Amino acid sequence: MRQIAIFGFGVVGGGLPEVIESCREGINNLLGEEINVKYVLDLREFPDSPYGDRVVHDIDLIVDDPEIEVVCETMGGAHPAYEFSVKAMEHGISVVTSNKEVVATYGDKLLETAEKNNVSYLFEASVGGGIPLIRPFSTSLAQENIVSVSGILNGTTNFILSKMKSEGREFSDVLAEAQSLGYAEKDPTADVDGIDAARKITILAALATGCLADVDKVHAETVRNITPADIDAAERMGGAVKLIGSFRRTDGGICLYVCPQIVGKDNALSGVDDVYNAISVKCEITGDVMFYGRGAGRYPTAGAVLADVTAILSGAAAAEKRQKFTKTDGIVPFEDVKFSYYVRVAADSPADTLEAFANLFDFAFTIDGSPAGTVEIICGNATKRELDSALENVGGVESVIRILE
Amino acid sequence: MRQIAIFGFGVVGGGLPEVIESCREGINNLLGEEINVKYVLDLREFPDSPYGDRVVHDIDLIVDDPEIEVVCETMGGAHPAYEFSVKAMEHGISVVTSNKEVVATYGDKLLETAEKNNVSYLFEASVGGGIPLIRPFSTSLAQENIVSVSGILNGTTNFILSKMKSEGREFSDVLAEAQSLGYAEKDPTADVDGIDAARKITILAALATGCLADVDKVHAETVRNITPADIDAAERMGGAVKLIGSFRRTDGGICLYVCPQIVGKDNALSGVDDVYNAISVKCEITGDVMFYGRGAGRYPTAGAVLADVTAILSGAAAAEKRQKFTKTDGIVPFEDVKFSYYVRVAADSPADTLEAFANLFDFAFTIDGSPAGTVEIICGNATKRELDSALENVGGVESVIRILE
Repeated sequence: MRQIAIFGFGVVGGGLPEVIESCREGINNLLGEEINVKYVLDLREFPDSPYGDRVVHDIDLIVDDPEIEVVCETMGGAHPAYEFSVKAMEHGISVVTSNKEVVATYGDKLLETAEKNNVSYLFEASVGGGIPLIRPFSTSLAQENIVSVSGILNGTTNFILSKMKSEGREFSDVLAEAQSLGYAEKDPTADVDGIDAARKITILAALATGCLADVDKVHAETVRNITPADIDAAERMGGAVKLIGSFRRTDGGICLYVCPQIVGKDNALSGVDDVYNAISVKCEITGDVMFYGRGAGRYPTAGAVLADVTAILSGAAAAEKRQKFTKTDGIVPFEDVKFSYYVRVAADSPADTLEAFANLFDFAFTIDGSPAGTVEIICGNATKRELDSALENVGGVESVIRILE
Repeated sequence: MRQIAIFGFGVVGGGLPEVIESCREGINNLLGEEINVKYVLDLREFPDSPYGDRVVHDIDLIVDDPEIEVVCETMGGAHPAYEFSVKAMEHGISVVTSNKEVVATYGDKLLETAEKNNVSYLFEASVGGGIPLIRPFSTSLAQENIVSVSGILNGTTNFILSKMKSEGREFSDVLAEAQSLGYAEKDPTADVDGIDAARKITILAALATGCLADVDKVHAETVRNITPADIDAAERMGGAVKLIGSFRRTDGGICLYVCPQIVGKDNALSGVDDVYNAISVKCEITGDVMFYGRGAGRYPTAGAVLADVTAILSGAAAAEKRQKFTKTDGIVPFEDVKFSYYVRVAADSPADTLEAFANLFDFAFTIDGSPAGTVEIICGNATKRELDSALENVGGVESVIRILE
């Protein structure tokens, strides 16, 4: 019997005991013995849970117990998750987490603490929920040159954008439905304003480069302004509007950001709908690889936590040489990244509007089927600075959306 | 400097030295030293290759060299790849392969030989080319209950079916183009008749269950009979015709087969076009997960070989507890598997035809837009036996295609 503890008995942590139960046979095949949840650390009591008698409120009871080999930190939030994880590792206990905020913010220090104490710090569940992503990225692709990553990293916004497309509804209307279904939180800021996705792309960029960006400086743009007219335009272009977290290497440093983008139908990400996540990785040798699955949800995410736990308990994790993270200031400012854009302006003459854009951009062309009284232009390549300055000369701009390369 | 050898200097093996060169930095990060190709075993000479001076024709020169740690077997074919791999492992050398035929046929014995000799036998490159698939399947999903696997496992047929769809062309016409582009071989049997895909689904089913089916008994159906009319019908149903390798568990045993199937648009596999492969895995806890990428090609496949080589040289592979294979006779006969079907018959009266089908099947309905003089029916659920016996009573059957659940 191998002993573990859970820090935070919420959605993911609370689902973990059931997942361990469901996977009993597979665990036995891998480890030759069972996994037991000996403690649950939480401020609350859970009198109705079969694990209610394992709830403790004092972390020292857990970290001082020499039987505990792994802590599953499923608390969420940077604090005290960070301090608790460090404390566990300093007591020789490996830590597994589903908490993207703490990994994106303190990943460098957490991995350093793990190395110093000869334990593992794993975070498969922090990006892409149940999708096996971090481990293949860290092992199978370890010797590869990762050129870029583009991902649908937030299931809530993808659910909303998919519904807006399939049912022609307004953002606020679908958000309310997502909230009533439990897919979106009462305060949806972290999801719809791109903060959650920014944390995830920060983690993926660090895996690809070893450089951990300051997550607060990663440009994150909301999807609140996306309208049915935007989605209709993307459809006429044969694609879809998606909230995309992107990373790529440039001469100036690493470049990462989150913003709504129009994804063309030739890109497999355009067909990823509903609460699904997908992460497309462009590799120098392997070409394009995509990982797809449920990016959130109690059981898939708890399943990813369990995969990390068994990797540690089987000895596999200790033998994997994983990327270290070093904090970096070398992010290319979002204002300096060149894009192509979809722009919709209130105007009557397509020819005059196109001429104005053609004078301001490297290229510009109109698309067909625009709503009455508007002209829709695809133009580029331009940085945000160049775009903003160009659009000062054009009146009536209704919408600007970047186009994924 | 870590020493390896390549058995078979063809498409994949011949690309491996370049891939090692391209990944030099990543390899150094992982291993702290370089990988050197000390020998190439081939019947031919390669006087124009920079590796020409490393070519040997006697396997004993390689297996008797105590410096050699890994052999990359990229010969193709079951023999002598099997005997050579066994010999290398008996000399304490780990083996990595891209050869699906030898894994599907002798995987049980090869893994047993590896275990006996305390070395690794890895085959990431045998399914899905460069896609990181076998390793996540064997590690991240090891504790999971794999319910089913459905995959587009052959890039050549997917290229042909995609072109038939996008350009409305006949099978034979697109096959000829694929051959001239080098996407299909002169003798395309293994690809278009499902043999290659059958080997791959046999390997995936063995990873999921530990049971290695007799690959010659796995039902494999050709795509040669698919016509533009079939593809048009699938499009009218909102989907696409794909050559699908499927595995699932049933009460009667494991069930695996390869056949053309109509994939609905809600299934992410329907959007996988061109030479791309995608493997969709349904897991009890994690739900649906899909892996997508280039399923073939010199460099992606050689990249997957290299990933296995570094996993061995870094010590990671030895710490992974991977599935053993045991030969099984317990495959459910294809004739006993129930499906829904698309059936097109030459007939004038949709009502009469529908009535005939409704009397023969659990359900039947017609679809719209049928070519003149034909009626198209969706019906099921029926085994092949039941279908064949029912269709004896219906004249003028032009096409029968299974529908992916």
